[in-house]
Amino acid sequence: MEGYGLKRNVYLETVDLEEAEQILKRDFIMPLHEESETISVLNCLGRTTKEPIFATISNPHYNASAMDGIALKAESTYGAHERNEVILCEGQDFMYVDTGDLIDPNFNAVLMIEDVAPKGDGKVGTIKSVYPWENVRVVGEDIVCGDMLLPSNHRITPVDIGALISGGIVELVVYKQKTVGIIPTGTEIVNPGESLKPGNIIDSNSRVFENMVIESNGIPRRYNPVPDDIDKLRKALLKSIQENDITVINAGSSAGSEDYTVDLIRELGDVYIHGIAIKPGKPTIIGKISGKPVIGVPGYPVSAYIAFKTFVLPLVNPSIRRSEDVRIDVTLSKRIVSALKHEEVVRVKLGKVGDIRIGTPLTRGAGATMSLVNADGLLRIPKASEGYEAGSIVKVQLLKSLDTIDRSLVSIGSHDILIDYLNDFMAKSGDGYTISSAHVGSLGGIMAIRKGETHIAPTHLLDEETGIYNIGFINRYLKGKKIYLLKGIKRWQGIYVEKGNPKNIKGIEDLVGNDVMLANRQRGSGTRVLFDYLLKNGKCDPKSINGYDRELTTHTSVALSVVSGNSDVGLGIQSVANLMGLDFIPVALEDYDFIIPSEYLNDSRVQYFLEQIQKKDFEEYLKHLGGYELDGFHMSTFEVGES
Amino acid sequence: MEGYGLKRNVYLETVDLEEAEQILKRDFIMPLHEESETISVLNCLGRTTKEPIFATISNPHYNASAMDGIALKAESTYGAHERNEVILCEGQDFMYVDTGDLIDPNFNAVLMIEDVAPKGDGKVGTIKSVYPWENVRVVGEDIVCGDMLLPSNHRITPVDIGALISGGIVELVVYKQKTVGIIPTGTEIVNPGESLKPGNIIDSNSRVFENMVIESNGIPRRYNPVPDDIDKLRKALLKSIQENDITVINAGSSAGSEDYTVDLIRELGDVYIHGIAIKPGKPTIIGKISGKPVIGVPGYPVSAYIAFKTFVLPLVNPSIRRSEDVRIDVTLSKRIVSALKHEEVVRVKLGKVGDIRIGTPLTRGAGATMSLVNADGLLRIPKASEGYEAGSIVKVQLLKSLDTIDRSLVSIGSHDILIDYLNDFMAKSGDGYTISSAHVGSLGGIMAIRKGETHIAPTHLLDEETGIYNIGFINRYLKGKKIYLLKGIKRWQGIYVEKGNPKNIKGIEDLVGNDVMLANRQRGSGTRVLFDYLLKNGKCDPKSINGYDRELTTHTSVALSVVSGNSDVGLGIQSVANLMGLDFIPVALEDYDFIIPSEYLNDSRVQYFLEQIQKKDFEEYLKHLGGYELDGFHMSTFEVGES
Repeated sequence: MEGYGLKRNVYLETVDLEEAEQILKRDFIMPLHEESETISVLNCLGRTTKEPIFATISNPHYNASAMDGIALKAESTYGAHERNEVILCEGQDFMYVDTGDLIDPNFNAVLMIEDVAPKGDGKVGTIKSVYPWENVRVVGEDIVCGDMLLPSNHRITPVDIGALISGGIVELVVYKQKTVGIIPTGTEIVNPGESLKPGNIIDSNSRVFENMVIESNGIPRRYNPVPDDIDKLRKALLKSIQENDITVINAGSSAGSEDYTVDLIRELGDVYIHGIAIKPGKPTIIGKISGKPVIGVPGYPVSAYIAFKTFVLPLVNPSIRRSEDVRIDVTLSKRIVSALKHEEVVRVKLGKVGDIRIGTPLTRGAGATMSLVNADGLLRIPKASEGYEAGSIVKVQLLKSLDTIDRSLVSIGSHDILIDYLNDFMAKSGDGYTISSAHVGSLGGIMAIRKGETHIAPTHLLDEETGIYNIGFINRYLKGKKIYLLKGIKRWQGIYVEKGNPKNIKGIEDLVGNDVMLANRQRGSGTRVLFDYLLKNGKCDPKSINGYDRELTTHTSVALSVVSGNSDVGLGIQSVANLMGLDFIPVALEDYDFIIPSEYLNDSRVQYFLEQIQKKDFEEYLKHLGGYELDGFHMSTFEVGES
Repeated sequence: MEGYGLKRNVYLETVDLEEAEQILKRDFIMPLHEESETISVLNCLGRTTKEPIFATISNPHYNASAMDGIALKAESTYGAHERNEVILCEGQDFMYVDTGDLIDPNFNAVLMIEDVAPKGDGKVGTIKSVYPWENVRVVGEDIVCGDMLLPSNHRITPVDIGALISGGIVELVVYKQKTVGIIPTGTEIVNPGESLKPGNIIDSNSRVFENMVIESNGIPRRYNPVPDDIDKLRKALLKSIQENDITVINAGSSAGSEDYTVDLIRELGDVYIHGIAIKPGKPTIIGKISGKPVIGVPGYPVSAYIAFKTFVLPLVNPSIRRSEDVRIDVTLSKRIVSALKHEEVVRVKLGKVGDIRIGTPLTRGAGATMSLVNADGLLRIPKASEGYEAGSIVKVQLLKSLDTIDRSLVSIGSHDILIDYLNDFMAKSGDGYTISSAHVGSLGGIMAIRKGETHIAPTHLLDEETGIYNIGFINRYLKGKKIYLLKGIKRWQGIYVEKGNPKNIKGIEDLVGNDVMLANRQRGSGTRVLFDYLLKNGKCDPKSINGYDRELTTHTSVALSVVSGNSDVGLGIQSVANLMGLDFIPVALEDYDFIIPSEYLNDSRVQYFLEQIQKKDFEEYLKHLGGYELDGFHMSTFEVGES
């Protein structure tokens, strides 16, 4: 509460990110990290130096032999050669030394033991000469006493510890570790493992925060969730302020909780910032109570992550900067539109196809936890920018190692859970290969092949005229390309219905009418092409089908729509119906093929993929999933003419 | 001891790296990681999945309102617009909902509270319409029950933990953590902080290993150093085998200790590999005792680090692969020659100058601890290669973040400890800027400017004819370049002599003669140019100076040579003499200038540097060091004609 003086009016509504970071640095990070502590060099991994560290001894700290041999005066070997053996006396002309032994101040070189011929009576001969200081590690060769071993603000690594020890350091001055109180709030919040009622949300944010603090070398202290009650929140907040250096309040997703937080900080201390022009993360609150930082972080998981990373981690560890992450040039596969009113952080999936790294934006919803797991990088669109066109080269901050990204097989096209299993098979074999898959439908996959944005495209597009899968579409859309088509997997498509089939659906024709609600797939997906073909064949008017316009993008989302009662029926593959406990009315056995451009056939990632898909284990898995038929993998090649 | 059967003869002498890695994977990593354990999701950071993890609930697990507002049937708002207010009754047509609330199964959309006009009597009006499922987060929008959340062999991050919790995971199966016994050996080894006698080596390797194990999520158990005594080593080895999953013996630097290790492993178990064609790291031993891996790691710090990273860490954590590190394209500034008989690992310093990343090889000595601290990356030269020419583009594994590298000001040229202080000043200010400096002498710096390999070049080259510093050399070597020259620092050069000046040196002329040993600087360094100028002026013949041919590359190494008694005199700057407690006979006040090519003058790194160098604090530091005079910073510009 900082004494009884008048409160400063420091409240700022929706400041720009740059300004917020300046305020954070000046008023929060710098005063917070004035304190230092002296710790043992044996226990300093990950800590950050507060001042430069100078060597207190040299390394080597004496002139040391770098070989087993004899120490001598280099000059005494001059003139030695094959026809002129030089004879030396032990004690007077030389001394035997092992690697690491001290060189007597009378000597200045070492002759390797292999070049020494014993002559008896303490005498040796040699036909080799050495130059002064040859085979000697002279004092300070590695480290000179007084050398700056590490500068300020340096986060200590294992090799640094080796150099500190070799430079004679026993203790060193580092920033004090910061304790971070984390208070989840919201009446609807429950702990992991507790029974879930509709309206409940499992508290995951505070666990993500805890672990982010650990990775940044702070000490997290998580409190139990506090319901939306201002008195309880006040109590929890005061307790955390007392017990920690930094306090984070994670708002529930309800609008009220943010107001509680800002009101309480204003009541007990000062609000510096309320609202920052960054998306996701806008409703962040930055304030102080009793001189200690209090950060109000929004509730939606992605907003929470971005706000915590941007505004809390730099408080925890001053060597962490927003921009510290590796940034690389990436070519965007899709247009991204962003508003001028804020900096926007877009999660992107990356893959190296040919010589360029392609970035595909992931869903921008603030609730999409999986988009954080799947993201390989973050693209920041500045406030002044309206976004980027497809094909633009942009800077992306890496969230995963470049090697992990570059070892990913890029698969863009039709969705099948077998892709997830193939990914697991690749990961399991331990050579670091994975599949980075985007589900954009079969036609989307073909377009990605055309633009050179993917290594493979899983596809199942039925040609209405010929009744043959994929080849018609390849001929139509991949003119001028040489491609391979891997065939071998067939899968059952059919109608998903609730267990017991309460609406008594027998086939496509039963989908017509008001009492049946459909979950449809998006245009361009193979399943939609099949569905429209079946409707046409059965002479059913799409307009007479309830929900025909509601497009979902995966089999699982269609199945889930039926499971949850949002829909009665949907078309999809059998394996997903089996997994999700739905009844399934089969309507077609289709070819699920993979298009591979010839230039990537010998790519190690593609070869690895081809190896996995032909494994007996994978066949077993498909049997276990159900709804697949394998008829032997075989590859056709196509060279589609330009016209 | 694996039963009483005959020992397999699996001993291999100096195998190739690839073969060693295959043996390691097949016979060591795979059997070692068959075990798994089930742990809480709350405590799984950094652990590695052994099998794929599937969501057990969907997220959201119910249809949730994404807004504060009213839940209703979308159809009931159709037709609403500014001149047609639709009236709805609470309970029958709508229900009030907050963000996160369950949507009643009778409703399918949410109208934002801002668009609702209360009409009394439980009635509201609206002039906005919504479409079905608008403002509703439908079941499974983020995660569908059954989704594969993480594949096998995935190292768990904070955001993964969020997704696992949201997907209903309470416990999960991961690889068991491995305990690693670390045994330092060698009679000469002492612990940090213990008093040092000549011949003693402070044990730093085992501390580096401990911390590398912690970073890889293993559990280190370090033992006290064991002297070179086969019985004591046997006892220590058997104890570690019993107590740990993996045992590492770190040989002393003496040749004998390696033999002890290999003999003992052969006595107690099986040696699989003795010697691997990798440099540094060749004397590595890989074996098993009682079915448990035992790795003998060489003693020199760099060899130890490379061997531990390459052969021990993949055992500790199967998700770590040698090639996992980020690799980037780098242009070599110097030729590197390597032997055909092994793969060689060269440490390189990196910097981004203009559009390219320049890599400069660091010292290749196996004892150079600081080369590991200073290295930004590792270049692997394959066994089949004899090395690379200057200008080649090579792949370098990053050891530091690309951002850290790209924020480094590259300084190539003359050595002065003030550069270390400027580096610390840059680091201290907390924006991530540092100086990456290479000490190649003044002329080397000018050549680096010419080849576009550095941002700045500190230089102090005296023109013998004009007596003016630097400008003559710029005109001679930087034809066709537009450059800036920052002047302002003058420093005293003089003769280093032992405290008390026992040889009674008064000036350059006293260096001539047999009883005085000189430590000279390398050709191309400004100090050497000055020295040769002074010799010429004083009519001294270099041939009459003892040690004239012994070239050292920094002021500190010259000073240290005098401190340690390896030499009697040397020319260098006063600040270093002060630091190292030497007496100093001043001979010249010289200009220490910085060359900056015009294209980099506005580079943020250069601007940051110019800011630091003009700080009052820096001036204070120079006063404290002594031997400098500041006469106001000023910049001249030169446009050197082509001819």
